[in-house]
Amino acid sequence: MSITRLQGDLRDFAAEREWEPFHTPKNLVMALAAEAGELIEIFLWLTPEQSLAVMNEPSAAEHVGEEVADVFAYLLRLCDVLGIDLERAVLDKIQKNARKYPVEQARGSAVKYTNLGMVEQS
Amino acid sequence: MSITRLQGDLRDFAAEREWEPFHTPKNLVMALAAEAGELIEIFLWLTPEQSLAVMNEPSAAEHVGEEVADVFAYLLRLCDVLGIDLERAVLDKIQKNARKYPVEQARGSAVKYTNLGMVEQS
Amino acid sequence: MSITRLQGDLRDFAAEREWEPFHTPKNLVMALAAEAGELIEIFLWLTPEQSLAVMNEPSAAEHVGEEVADVFAYLLRLCDVLGIDLERAVLDKIQKNARKYPVEQARGSAVKYTNLGMVEQS
Amino acid sequence: MSITRLQGDLRDFAAEREWEPFHTPKNLVMALAAEAGELIEIFLWLTPEQSLAVMNEPSAAEHVGEEVADVFAYLLRLCDVLGIDLERAVLDKIQKNARKYPVEQARGSAVKYTNLGMVEQS
Repeated sequence: MSITRLQGDLRDFAAEREWEPFHTPKNLVMALAAEAGELIEIFLWLTPEQSLAVMNEPSAAEHVGEEVADVFAYLLRLCDVLGIDLERAVLDKIQKNARKYPVEQARGSAVKYTNLGMVEQS
Repeated sequence: MSITRLQGDLRDFAAEREWEPFHTPKNLVMALAAEAGELIEIFLWLTPEQSLAVMNEPSAAEHVGEEVADVFAYLLRLCDVLGIDLERAVLDKIQKNARKYPVEQARGSAVKYTNLGMVEQS
Repeated sequence: MSITRLQGDLRDFAAEREWEPFHTPKNLVMALAAEAGELIEIFLWLTPEQSLAVMNEPSAAEHVGEEVADVFAYLLRLCDVLGIDLERAVLDKIQKNARKYPVEQARGSAVKYTNLGMVEQS
Repeated sequence: MSITRLQGDLRDFAAEREWEPFHTPKNLVMALAAEAGELIEIFLWLTPEQSLAVMNEPSAAEHVGEEVADVFAYLLRLCDVLGIDLERAVLDKIQKNARKYPVEQARGSAVKYTNLGMVEQS
């Protein structure tokens, strides 16, 4: 199923419930951030290693699945309302980042990631 | 292009630069939240009406496009690393929300959205 | 009661429960962001006008009070762990912003706030 | 300097620049979340150990200081606008958490923190 199709489903869902007036870009961005906060809450006290094993614990796995779905749903709604082609946007960003982080240099400078706080990946 | 294909592109991008060790679920969730924060920053002083017109201003439009791409890229990476089927997750969530918010009831209770702070849509 | 005193109370609270190992700056920043997300959740579907009236609704008022307390508690812990003088930091920032936004200019350019997405206050 | 005094300074700062109309609770909560996102950005690629050493790197230290100041400033403004006594709120929350996490039990169940994703500290 394509991104466009998912957006159609979510658009219908909101329309049937007459929720469109609440779906301003400002509100949808807030909703997305609130859901990102719930993802953060799941992982915050875990060590990096524990975070890699989170899907082994069924109730945590279900919780993570629901939160990524919520983030995605609001991201799709936001792009639908704003008329942004999300797939195009991410492909453009990959190209831009490929120029910004040439393989040779990015590889050589893995150190970049270990310099305290000096990192910006995207 | 499918979600799976985009995830493959992003996986290759990270692998070529030897960034996988940094892409723990904990870190990816933080990256997603940081990008959500940048989206929030774009919209925070706008009125709801201004937020609807944000794409009419070319530099703002470009900025929004880049930030939604960043959020999506980290969401795709997170799901790839955790083995979550993002499309399946959002379809499941739509079904769950359809049961939680039956059309008749949700429609009748648009009031729900206007009750101060008492709202939980998802 | 001073900020230093509140930090002492929170330090004791964590120490008595042997929670210090979890209170790395990385985790505390995540905790702060998660609580900010809960504040966002309270306000996200409200109009600006409704957001101004949120304290008139007792259960919402209590909820807001708890969430601002959580944000503050993690901010205090973070600064305590990092050895940052929070009061000094905010006074320095006010001085810096006073230079960045001179009264005459900031006043004249209230328009700044209405330019779509082009705003950075701090 | 007391919290009340800092709030007075920030109130004057906003009033002199005629920024009050922008300081609705909804917008201030978004500003707080955006600044929390900037804190996240500083720490996201750091290991827990590196995050503990962040203040040893002068430019990172300055950056962290500015971001905690921004978070605090918006938190103070939010509480000022809503009429919340922030000091009272955090003291109340400490008492509530003391009942929720009795020392003996919280100590015994440090395991709580290591259970994947099942943790809620506050």
